[in-house]
Amino acid sequence: MANPETDPELKTGPDPEDDSLIIDQGLTDDILELIADRDQGSLMNLLVDLHDSDIAVILDHLPPDDAIYLFRLLQDEQAAAVLLDVNDHTRGVILDSLGNVEITNIIDELDSDDAADVIQELPEEVAEVVLESISEEDRSEVRELLSYEEDTAGGLMATELIRIHESSSIYDAIMEIKKQAEEVEDLYDLYVVDAGERLVGTIDLKTLIITPSYKKVSEVMDTGFLTVRVDMDQEEVAHVMQKHDLVSIGVVNDQDQIVGQITIDDIVDVIRDEAQEDIQRLTGVVEESFSSRILKIVGSRLPWLLIGLFGEMISGMVIRSFESTLSQMIVLYAFIPLIMAMGGSTGVQSSSIVIQAIARGELWMSDIWKRLGKELGAALLISFTCGLIVVVVSMLTGGSLDMGLTIGGALMVVMVNAAMMGTVLPLMFEKLNVDPAMATGPFITTLNDILGLTIYFSIAYVVFF
Amino acid sequence: MANPETDPELKTGPDPEDDSLIIDQGLTDDILELIADRDQGSLMNLLVDLHDSDIAVILDHLPPDDAIYLFRLLQDEQAAAVLLDVNDHTRGVILDSLGNVEITNIIDELDSDDAADVIQELPEEVAEVVLESISEEDRSEVRELLSYEEDTAGGLMATELIRIHESSSIYDAIMEIKKQAEEVEDLYDLYVVDAGERLVGTIDLKTLIITPSYKKVSEVMDTGFLTVRVDMDQEEVAHVMQKHDLVSIGVVNDQDQIVGQITIDDIVDVIRDEAQEDIQRLTGVVEESFSSRILKIVGSRLPWLLIGLFGEMISGMVIRSFESTLSQMIVLYAFIPLIMAMGGSTGVQSSSIVIQAIARGELWMSDIWKRLGKELGAALLISFTCGLIVVVVSMLTGGSLDMGLTIGGALMVVMVNAAMMGTVLPLMFEKLNVDPAMATGPFITTLNDILGLTIYFSIAYVVFF
Repeated sequence: MANPETDPELKTGPDPEDDSLIIDQGLTDDILELIADRDQGSLMNLLVDLHDSDIAVILDHLPPDDAIYLFRLLQDEQAAAVLLDVNDHTRGVILDSLGNVEITNIIDELDSDDAADVIQELPEEVAEVVLESISEEDRSEVRELLSYEEDTAGGLMATELIRIHESSSIYDAIMEIKKQAEEVEDLYDLYVVDAGERLVGTIDLKTLIITPSYKKVSEVMDTGFLTVRVDMDQEEVAHVMQKHDLVSIGVVNDQDQIVGQITIDDIVDVIRDEAQEDIQRLTGVVEESFSSRILKIVGSRLPWLLIGLFGEMISGMVIRSFESTLSQMIVLYAFIPLIMAMGGSTGVQSSSIVIQAIARGELWMSDIWKRLGKELGAALLISFTCGLIVVVVSMLTGGSLDMGLTIGGALMVVMVNAAMMGTVLPLMFEKLNVDPAMATGPFITTLNDILGLTIYFSIAYVVFF
Repeated sequence: MANPETDPELKTGPDPEDDSLIIDQGLTDDILELIADRDQGSLMNLLVDLHDSDIAVILDHLPPDDAIYLFRLLQDEQAAAVLLDVNDHTRGVILDSLGNVEITNIIDELDSDDAADVIQELPEEVAEVVLESISEEDRSEVRELLSYEEDTAGGLMATELIRIHESSSIYDAIMEIKKQAEEVEDLYDLYVVDAGERLVGTIDLKTLIITPSYKKVSEVMDTGFLTVRVDMDQEEVAHVMQKHDLVSIGVVNDQDQIVGQITIDDIVDVIRDEAQEDIQRLTGVVEESFSSRILKIVGSRLPWLLIGLFGEMISGMVIRSFESTLSQMIVLYAFIPLIMAMGGSTGVQSSSIVIQAIARGELWMSDIWKRLGKELGAALLISFTCGLIVVVVSMLTGGSLDMGLTIGGALMVVMVNAAMMGTVLPLMFEKLNVDPAMATGPFITTLNDILGLTIYFSIAYVVFF
């Protein structure tokens, strides 16, 4: 956990926008000036008063050389905390500039899980040197952590935790805390193990404090604890901790031995990142962050766009296939944008609700017919309203009733169809074990356009020919 | 915090999809049968073994009468926890079915913040009766909480917390914990106050345990604590707690007196809900949940669609305005979907990255030119690739070079324009204090279509006439 300094701004409740856009900008300008003057004294005084996370934000916004200069003024402990908070790009720049000894000193300050994360980003030769330089115990812990997939419980957990034997007394447990207080920063629960190191209970600090010290931990420990397996996906870990309002959870291996703990601060980041991923998936951006370089941006965005490119060429073929007959009624072309946009929006709306329900575990197979009924009802009402407006506007602007009814009617069919597809496709994807969020992706948007235009022109064809 | 029972499934790591879609479905069927048989004994045995949150999910999926029947079998404490976890629709159904005495018994089991949330959902007459029936102390606490806006720190905080005077010893603090342990469930920090009840420090349980009991709390308390003001927006509270990895934070009033605390479990829900809101804003769905009724769904979705409807009529007018000249080259119409879809996707991609950067406080005004440069570079590369593909495909399918170059060139201009608009508009919205997420909303999507088609047809007009 961070040990933040007082932050008077928070108390006076500044506008969050101003906070991020203006206040720090002024401060950064001051810092840039001090760096230009090489005024180490003033800079170090200034840094002491800042939060680690604020320093990180400032570093993210400095030119590389200035960021490196400022970073080197930090004490090892603060440097370690700041290094965790800067963005990937800045972290790379800073790590590149540091010698192996400096990196090792910083790594020594980190919890095992954070140390493993930083080491993972180092070039392999440097990582090896650093690993050899840190203490024997830390090394084996970090090596173990490096062996887990990054997005699993193992990749997320810290190995720092307090184990006590089930035969210990409360007094023993308190002594153990005093001994390890320095090393285990995030301390919410002690883990009670049996002779085989298997987890048999947990005990929280409040219980320790209110229980007479002569009692055995086994008398008061919580045996209804939850654990996660070391290979569980981090999103599932987040789901478990969130569902049960847990602040920390033990991580066990195949033998039910406790190997680490995950604390809520790591999970908060997972939840935020997963939400960002969901939004990115929805908009066709893959693993792009604000600090990504141009080629990474291109790689992130182009795939979706290419699918759209070829898909919409098919839409074009649909239009061309009706050309010979419908070109006599060229006014029909003017409604292509309407048909496409309304179908697209309707499909995305329906699917986003279904996808969220699936992600939250709210949707069961038994709900599907009910859901379809609801979507159908809503789609009929919505599309009838829109269709009616089109008929009225069409008549008011001098269109024929036939034309108005055709376009309004086609719009209704397209929208209802899009709502049904938007509901059914995420469910089908889920059944097929494909990420249902893909259903709002390029395939479906494009498919919707192709289908929508086919429906539109077919109806027009039937009405007018 | 929840006090969950053992959950063997979590240890064996089931597939999360199976968990939500199949396992609980079978269980629910069993429960439905037992309810039909009115087999209270078996049901109560079954309920004892289930987590509160699992019972909530099951209730969400039962027909109303069965849900009410099952809910009435729960003990008050469990009933209270389950009531918090069910969805809004189910909660309404259950509350409607309960008498005032039953509701009061459940409210008595809840922390003040949760009690206030439930009471807020009751019809006014019922709320008054319930408020009159709970204990004097709880009543004034709940009344105070009800006076805060729901989405502020005040609406989120619990009033249960432990205050100790700065002149107290560690021993006094421990005695105070023993006295209040029952009432204050979420205990991470004690709040140290001066004679004027102003917050002067915090002290965490680990520090309490490792400090000799004769010491004064003022000697070891953390004076660099953070607080939030009672009227701070919940999203900003989440930002502060997340940035500083806090598990709990004190809430103070205008006089810097501590009035409540917010714990991380409430913030996790805020983060999840805000993420959901962001996604909904992106897809044009407003405050809709999976349990919403049809009319609410219609109300949630129609506004965006109506904006699209009228906007795309304008797109139609653009098309018609070029009709007299361009109808001689009817093949141009076949590329309308391509132009619209590619411009739309590009704009949404650019803006979603900028919006996220603004939300995370990563984007400063000083970054804007750099950002625009990056977006321009990426857009040029991406659109050149797409334009080239269009030229090649057009030639391969027997189109003229002129036609291919015109459409490929127009596509490039439309995509670069969309990327620039997608970058600039969220920034403008931010400056104007409008939620930048609106920039991915209906206005912009539609504006993009109108502009894109105008660019496309204008270029075609210039080339061919």
